[in-house]
Amino acid sequence: MKLRILAPSVAALALMISSPLVGDEGMWLYNNPPRQQLKEKHGFDLTDAWLEHLQKSSVRFNSGGSGSFVSEDGLVISNHHVGADALQKVGSKEKNYLRDGFQAKSLAEEIPCADLELNVLQSIEDVTARVDAGVPATATGEEAFKARRKVMAAIEKESLDQTGLRSNVITLYQGGAYHLYRFKRYTDVRIVFAPEQQIAFYGGDPDNFEFPRFDLDICLFRVYEDGKPIKVRHHLKWSKAGASEGELTFVSGHPGRTDRLLTMAELGYLRDVQYPYTLSRLRRLDSLLTAWSGRSEENARRAKEDLFGVQNSRKAREGGIAGLQDPVLMGKKAAAEQQFRARLALSGEFPDAVAAYDRIAAAQAEIGKHALRVRLLEGEHGLASESFAIARTLLRAGDESPKPNGERLKEFTDSEKESLELGLFSDKPIHPDYETLRLADSLAFLIEQLGSSDALVQQVLAGKSPRARAAELIAGTRVRDVAFRKQLYIGGAAAVAAAKDPMIELARRVDGDARAARKAVEAQDETKQQAQAAIAKARFKLEGTDRYPDATFTLRLAYGPVKGYEEDGRTVPAITTIGGLYQRSAEMKDKPPFDLPPSWVKKKGALDLGTPFNFVSTADIIGGNSGSPVVNRAGEFVGIIFDGNIQSLVLDFAYDDVQARALSVHSSAIIEALGKVYGAKDLVRELQAGKRKG
Amino acid sequence: MKLRILAPSVAALALMISSPLVGDEGMWLYNNPPRQQLKEKHGFDLTDAWLEHLQKSSVRFNSGGSGSFVSEDGLVISNHHVGADALQKVGSKEKNYLRDGFQAKSLAEEIPCADLELNVLQSIEDVTARVDAGVPATATGEEAFKARRKVMAAIEKESLDQTGLRSNVITLYQGGAYHLYRFKRYTDVRIVFAPEQQIAFYGGDPDNFEFPRFDLDICLFRVYEDGKPIKVRHHLKWSKAGASEGELTFVSGHPGRTDRLLTMAELGYLRDVQYPYTLSRLRRLDSLLTAWSGRSEENARRAKEDLFGVQNSRKAREGGIAGLQDPVLMGKKAAAEQQFRARLALSGEFPDAVAAYDRIAAAQAEIGKHALRVRLLEGEHGLASESFAIARTLLRAGDESPKPNGERLKEFTDSEKESLELGLFSDKPIHPDYETLRLADSLAFLIEQLGSSDALVQQVLAGKSPRARAAELIAGTRVRDVAFRKQLYIGGAAAVAAAKDPMIELARRVDGDARAARKAVEAQDETKQQAQAAIAKARFKLEGTDRYPDATFTLRLAYGPVKGYEEDGRTVPAITTIGGLYQRSAEMKDKPPFDLPPSWVKKKGALDLGTPFNFVSTADIIGGNSGSPVVNRAGEFVGIIFDGNIQSLVLDFAYDDVQARALSVHSSAIIEALGKVYGAKDLVRELQAGKRKG
Repeated sequence: MKLRILAPSVAALALMISSPLVGDEGMWLYNNPPRQQLKEKHGFDLTDAWLEHLQKSSVRFNSGGSGSFVSEDGLVISNHHVGADALQKVGSKEKNYLRDGFQAKSLAEEIPCADLELNVLQSIEDVTARVDAGVPATATGEEAFKARRKVMAAIEKESLDQTGLRSNVITLYQGGAYHLYRFKRYTDVRIVFAPEQQIAFYGGDPDNFEFPRFDLDICLFRVYEDGKPIKVRHHLKWSKAGASEGELTFVSGHPGRTDRLLTMAELGYLRDVQYPYTLSRLRRLDSLLTAWSGRSEENARRAKEDLFGVQNSRKAREGGIAGLQDPVLMGKKAAAEQQFRARLALSGEFPDAVAAYDRIAAAQAEIGKHALRVRLLEGEHGLASESFAIARTLLRAGDESPKPNGERLKEFTDSEKESLELGLFSDKPIHPDYETLRLADSLAFLIEQLGSSDALVQQVLAGKSPRARAAELIAGTRVRDVAFRKQLYIGGAAAVAAAKDPMIELARRVDGDARAARKAVEAQDETKQQAQAAIAKARFKLEGTDRYPDATFTLRLAYGPVKGYEEDGRTVPAITTIGGLYQRSAEMKDKPPFDLPPSWVKKKGALDLGTPFNFVSTADIIGGNSGSPVVNRAGEFVGIIFDGNIQSLVLDFAYDDVQARALSVHSSAIIEALGKVYGAKDLVRELQAGKRKG
Repeated sequence: MKLRILAPSVAALALMISSPLVGDEGMWLYNNPPRQQLKEKHGFDLTDAWLEHLQKSSVRFNSGGSGSFVSEDGLVISNHHVGADALQKVGSKEKNYLRDGFQAKSLAEEIPCADLELNVLQSIEDVTARVDAGVPATATGEEAFKARRKVMAAIEKESLDQTGLRSNVITLYQGGAYHLYRFKRYTDVRIVFAPEQQIAFYGGDPDNFEFPRFDLDICLFRVYEDGKPIKVRHHLKWSKAGASEGELTFVSGHPGRTDRLLTMAELGYLRDVQYPYTLSRLRRLDSLLTAWSGRSEENARRAKEDLFGVQNSRKAREGGIAGLQDPVLMGKKAAAEQQFRARLALSGEFPDAVAAYDRIAAAQAEIGKHALRVRLLEGEHGLASESFAIARTLLRAGDESPKPNGERLKEFTDSEKESLELGLFSDKPIHPDYETLRLADSLAFLIEQLGSSDALVQQVLAGKSPRARAAELIAGTRVRDVAFRKQLYIGGAAAVAAAKDPMIELARRVDGDARAARKAVEAQDETKQQAQAAIAKARFKLEGTDRYPDATFTLRLAYGPVKGYEEDGRTVPAITTIGGLYQRSAEMKDKPPFDLPPSWVKKKGALDLGTPFNFVSTADIIGGNSGSPVVNRAGEFVGIIFDGNIQSLVLDFAYDDVQARALSVHSSAIIEALGKVYGAKDLVRELQAGKRKG
């Protein structure tokens, strides 16, 4: 038995209480919360009522963030940078709400967002057995993928029909479990308050992911139904004192994605291929948008939101690749994998799990052959523009709609229909000059990535330079007209073909290649998922089910105390104050992005400079947690997550509490600023009372 | 005869007066000037005296730019961005000359530059026959490279010994000719005047390579010998009126590099491999330095010069790749190559030239296998920092010095000795934090490019993360101490080895790989050069010698009228005014980089707002021409080149005068600003009189 020789001795195995949790690690499922850890480490009893209240007070922003109800009258708080997209869309050249802020003085002044969907989680149901039963054991990767899509779509459709709730089957533990999440959807969301971007994102890109910080990164919305603010039973009570140093806090939000359960083969791919590619593209966009924004005020307004996203992702990925390139961190993960594989082999009970690692490595290698085309053609990295995205959606809607629900591309299934139409018929402004800029640059990127002699590249360019081709396509397409879109969407494939729209025809030309590449990757992803499921199931048996899965942009609970840290020999304090903001500004001579908004200059005298502004905690968070409420033991709102420090960026791959910290805006700073800087007395009253006056 | 079948008919050949010059095309050699073109197109008689005066008034900045003498007392004018490196090096945290400007009120106040070498061309001698005779016809690529290096070094050494002048054999027409250039060297160069960077680079990166512009991109230096200003016979007289629209102007400067004579195989490599690589690296550095600069004022000061260079190169390369990716431009070049190859084949006289194209393609493919390692290890893209560069120079100086002059690496030959030592013993400040930042980032880049499992990468990192390894190396090395460098340089290889300096030992570890990759590429370059030489010689015979070679950072003459152009349907006027500066600032709400320096705000009332500020002409220029004097028919100074517009960036591959324009600061703006904004009366008098008062 060759494996035995490689396997560690029993003595060594005794040391392997493998993958023990570190400190306050964990992005916990609401249906598998860390009761024991909280009890043991922090003496806290997690009750069902406490948990349900927090769950139903938590809100997902489908644009990519988190938030919470903070008044019974549907008031929702999130980050300014989560609301930025909405602020941008409702703004104009004259009214730059994103930059200058906004404040509704009455319900009538609250501005409806162009296309924003909020979800509130109502229930979770384990449907693993049914999903697995839907996939024949003998199916190939592609067949299994289709079968799984089909059974998942059926479960979702059935649930939607029965409950009227948005229903999504979520793949957890990389395929180890499938849970059905049901959400209440809200689509009439109105903007109530936003501060100036200058203070929301104080310190800009240079201070992003750094601490100490002084950001009032908040935005308030109100949810409406039938033209009136909704009434919610579950909303968070505002804490009088807010977070204090050393205090245990909880974070309830929607971490987007982590990669902690990936195998070394997958991590190697991320390190050597995917991250370098992504970073190279993000840096390219950073350059492009920064230079274009610099040419005029209006350019800057149009690109601001995209530019923020690009710079934010860039720094996040830089932090991530630093982890991947760190032989110490990767060495630990490699050792853990080796030990677990040895343990699997030794037990003799899990032949599927033993074989899974090589299957994953092979699938990953196969993915590597198709991934670039998926990114360029399907992820639109080579065909970037709103116009192209709309054109493709119209084309595919025409082709997919006639198919049975379970056989459609995921985004065209019944459960996604409402969200799809919300986006497709959005009348948010699309600017042709900006569209041309982005499309031209992405076409140049396409040439670089696939080579100028690639047949598809030549078809896409049609003998023109990227700039000339982009200008011609953007000028020629009609998809920026919402009525035109509706007409084609309703008319279906025949109407789409008859329109002979140049952008839709371009989408048609690449569609075969795009679908083929996507299909190839999806089949391999399915293979990986099956293999990961085998590993996950073996791990449950060997190490218990008291574990959390990788992040999936669904509701999770994290926790940890408010706590400073050491950096380059200095102690970084846990909490900053409003006074610190004025000091940082003076130190940087008030130059952008360290300049204070006029409102803050004017009201300095009125403010209590000792008010806590931002704070750090050891809670386990990642992108997507932006806007997550931070609550105390009593479940009261004590702050709101808005960032992680630079050291937290490796949390993608492994939790750490030595230096990694979650950054929050302190609840007291929100009250102090709303009341004294912005004179928003009604809002302050609503937050403190938990309801509108009246 | 198969080739005959493929060859065009005689009738078609008659149309092939191939590669005719376009408009005012040409970066002409001073020993082969465009007399006939100037006579025919502009009725201008180019005399030897006129040419010699301009030649000896022209100055090369070895840091990478051009300039000219503008007073008999050694006063030299160049661009602010050419002087930036010098300004940065003599500045400090307290005295930020680069940002805030500088003005010497007397000779005593003029500040010596840390290590700046100026060259003035004295003579050119054709040594093609001797160089070619030194290379045996039967030599392999590597042997031929060595033989050519040897004969070139011998010619240079002989010339240096005989004349005491810096002597360089320059390869022209990609090997079609070799000319010996002799320069007078000046190393005691002092800073006389620089405006604020805000006005020198008004509009910053967003307006860079754009027109209309409003930049006072000038810097004044004075050349000293034996502690006194030199006296020069040749210096440019200042024009009373300056350049006017439609007027013929001449540009005398040092274009760095063009690629107009490259074959399609070489251009394809640039398009598909080299430009994408370079751009990806430049965007990476742009992100890194921008983010770091944003964290503090002092960071910004330390990185400013590098950041400018990176952003400037990035935009230039973006313009270049736009040309390479343009099927129209590339199609023309491909057709021209095909025609010339057909003509060669048809003539039957040039078998070497006929075969040359395939040899070049093969050599280029071979270069592609080694180029990445050359860039990373030899070009230091994977080991960036001043400390590493110094460490390697010390290591190699020790190894190379004992060898015969002709066998050394080029930069260690006798003719380069003085320049090498000037750089090596420079006491310009080197900041460990900035060094660590750059080295860490370049190590991460090295991992990305070669892969983390590469043996050399693992040796370089020594089991640490890029950040940790960089911190350890920068903290541990002693090479930032100039005395230490001198000691090791004098002590030679034994002293270098005994020092056991960690950075030098790192340089030693990569030296074998770096040298091997460099050698492989140099051998293929030699093969290409021989093939190019065969093409060039055939071209001389078939099309005459009235041609100019690609740019080589040696003195060239270009010409063209002051002339506006059309862009997106608008007419761009040829000349801007000082009044336009104030308009642009108002339009951009005076926000950086469009904010006016306080000096310009204060003196607005005193200025004649109608004074010409910047202007454009059709002269054929490229990077390296920065600071080139622009003169009129009388040889008088009417302006100074500081940029090209975005459309000029394809000049790397082909001349164009439809939209491509050279950008200059107008001589009148210089006088107006010096006199009225900066109160530099003595300087104004010196420029107008051509000598210091006294």
